[in-house]
Amino acid sequence: MTSREQTMKNIPLLLIGCGGVGRQLLQHIVSCRSIHAKQKLHLRVVGICDSKTLLVPLDVFTVELDDAFLLEVCQAKLKGSSLLTLSNSGQHKVFLNPESMGKIIDIAALLARSTGLTVIDCSASSDTTGVLTRVVELDCCVVMANKKPLSSSMEDYEKLLACPRRIRHESTVGAGLPVIASLNRMLSSGDLVHRIVGSLSGTLGFVMSEVEDGKPFSQVVRSAKNLGYTEPGLVNCSPAAVYLINRFLVFLVEQVQLDPRDDLSGMDVARKALILARLLGRRIVLNNIKVESLYPEEMGPSTMSIASFLENGLPLLDKGIQERVEKASSNGNVLRYVCLIDDLRCEVGIQELPKNTPLGRLRGSDNVLEISSRCYNQQPLVIQGAGAGNDTTAAGVLADVFDVQDLFH
Amino acid sequence: MTSREQTMKNIPLLLIGCGGVGRQLLQHIVSCRSIHAKQKLHLRVVGICDSKTLLVPLDVFTVELDDAFLLEVCQAKLKGSSLLTLSNSGQHKVFLNPESMGKIIDIAALLARSTGLTVIDCSASSDTTGVLTRVVELDCCVVMANKKPLSSSMEDYEKLLACPRRIRHESTVGAGLPVIASLNRMLSSGDLVHRIVGSLSGTLGFVMSEVEDGKPFSQVVRSAKNLGYTEPGLVNCSPAAVYLINRFLVFLVEQVQLDPRDDLSGMDVARKALILARLLGRRIVLNNIKVESLYPEEMGPSTMSIASFLENGLPLLDKGIQERVEKASSNGNVLRYVCLIDDLRCEVGIQELPKNTPLGRLRGSDNVLEISSRCYNQQPLVIQGAGAGNDTTAAGVLADVFDVQDLFH
Repeated sequence: MTSREQTMKNIPLLLIGCGGVGRQLLQHIVSCRSIHAKQKLHLRVVGICDSKTLLVPLDVFTVELDDAFLLEVCQAKLKGSSLLTLSNSGQHKVFLNPESMGKIIDIAALLARSTGLTVIDCSASSDTTGVLTRVVELDCCVVMANKKPLSSSMEDYEKLLACPRRIRHESTVGAGLPVIASLNRMLSSGDLVHRIVGSLSGTLGFVMSEVEDGKPFSQVVRSAKNLGYTEPGLVNCSPAAVYLINRFLVFLVEQVQLDPRDDLSGMDVARKALILARLLGRRIVLNNIKVESLYPEEMGPSTMSIASFLENGLPLLDKGIQERVEKASSNGNVLRYVCLIDDLRCEVGIQELPKNTPLGRLRGSDNVLEISSRCYNQQPLVIQGAGAGNDTTAAGVLADVFDVQDLFH
Repeated sequence: MTSREQTMKNIPLLLIGCGGVGRQLLQHIVSCRSIHAKQKLHLRVVGICDSKTLLVPLDVFTVELDDAFLLEVCQAKLKGSSLLTLSNSGQHKVFLNPESMGKIIDIAALLARSTGLTVIDCSASSDTTGVLTRVVELDCCVVMANKKPLSSSMEDYEKLLACPRRIRHESTVGAGLPVIASLNRMLSSGDLVHRIVGSLSGTLGFVMSEVEDGKPFSQVVRSAKNLGYTEPGLVNCSPAAVYLINRFLVFLVEQVQLDPRDDLSGMDVARKALILARLLGRRIVLNNIKVESLYPEEMGPSTMSIASFLENGLPLLDKGIQERVEKASSNGNVLRYVCLIDDLRCEVGIQELPKNTPLGRLRGSDNVLEISSRCYNQQPLVIQGAGAGNDTTAAGVLADVFDVQDLFH
């Protein structure tokens, strides 16, 4: 414990992945300087890594990547450039993949004993698992927005969680919504969680509430993608801007081949369900989760192109969904695509739920989680709000970084 | 930072106030032993204090109050006995009030330098402010369910919060609901909170949703008190048990003089609003908050007995409330008794709110908080669930105790 006259804590950070969320995180770190200074905390960025390149200051003990450079990184990544384009100034050491991963471990080994280090994974890659595991073994902290390492084998999971207080991963479920932090609080106070039901995909939440109004499934899926519903930032724009962005997104779907099946397969929700189930102590893997895909196997990416799926496949699914919606409605219920974890089940798929519950009333792209426990037994604990977007996700990561600093002195 | 082979942390705790919440906390501590052991944590109770007596082990460095004794304390407090009745075994040092408060400071001074100490305030007294302030100055941690010290003068507040990470007080607002923890996460990640609206009284939440159905205010207030709605545990019982408990509570209201005006005055909600507003950086005191009382001054406790208020006063308020309910309803709205904090206001009272929002849909005694911020701008972040009850409140306290242990080594 520090003395009453608190000295400034200098916490070194190393960021893996500086696309959308990572880039936003760098901006948050810079703009939070004064807030953190009041709490006697300085976040010292000593490494940034994208899929190709790791940049570190010439001496990780004494020098940091300064705010001007962090903002330069943000600009470059916003334009879609690689970190490699910023590596020629002579101000940094540059390591290329695959050497970069080993170098991160070296830095962790160097800094752990003196100042500690927090490694942040904002990538979407499963390749980081090995590095993160080593970093934890070296007594450093890890903060993750990346779901992959936490949803791989139980062996890797248990290595990562060997010192649970050193790992934080709020933004792997529901972006910055305080889901993991709240569940951890319940578990550490001995509350017994009986059941978690959650709508954890903005896209599927939007789709299920729209088909409830009688719109055809195929049409709703197309507008969900076009609206960029997984990026709530767009909703802020003027109608004209939304129109232009929509046109651009349609263009993107065609050109860059955004595949709506990524969401419709349910696999992203399944990873979140796995993370929640493991938090509750379940020793399971992704394959143990019953996942309902919203398209049949014969319409999968290996047999049908995106264009063909959108044009020929998707409309064939309308009737089936419509019938299910009507059947649910005749029972006074609605359909929601949820993860459902209780003592017997860990499932992901469409469930018929009462209209008159937070999940049943859900409209649009918000995430909702209902947690039933010994303490919340009559009515569940409900956490609801935007569950996607770089800003919110990066804020969740930064809150985790701030929380783990209590472990450093 | 501890080495990879984590050693068991022995965190000494001292509990002030062992009535309802404090007693439940002792039970939780005992029943969470195995959960905490897995996290390499042992909570070592080195002092328990009620309004009259402080009991400590013969040597606070090496001995703790063991689980058998903690459960004995729970039994005694459940029966309404004082700690004084347990002080004759010769196993403990006994200090009587007012000596006890000074002794707590002595213990904090002794333990702070070697092992650290967390002092927990589950009392409902403003007398603890001085002790808690000293304890913080001595580098110990403080966890509070007690609202009073946090809602007194700005000077005391700033002394208490001098090292913000060492003070946790989740259970001062919405019992164990993750309100304070979530707000702190938002603030530390630089999210800008624009507006908080919350129904933070189980009793007033129940009252406002019942009058919405056309029931007379006076009748609803009586049944709220009789149903013991501020103690959601009762809702678990069989109808027969509820009937008996209701009869008992009616008896209690008459005998022990539970005063419904404690809730109706809004002062309890005002303290919670003050705690939230101060968290957002407002330098205000209780008197700066505009508080709407649901009874006029001439029906206050100084001029009207409880019996007379229930029989003669309360029914006179029915018509006014009914008219307001009808007016709101004709606008398509409902009335809720809320705290409202935004850039201009910090108010507590009845607000007309849209039906189709989490607050507008609220039924029964749950608490609901809607937080609007930069990250949650289209739709608010919503946290909803039981906001009262010893079990939930004590769970919130224990989660705080668990969280602050990261500061100790």
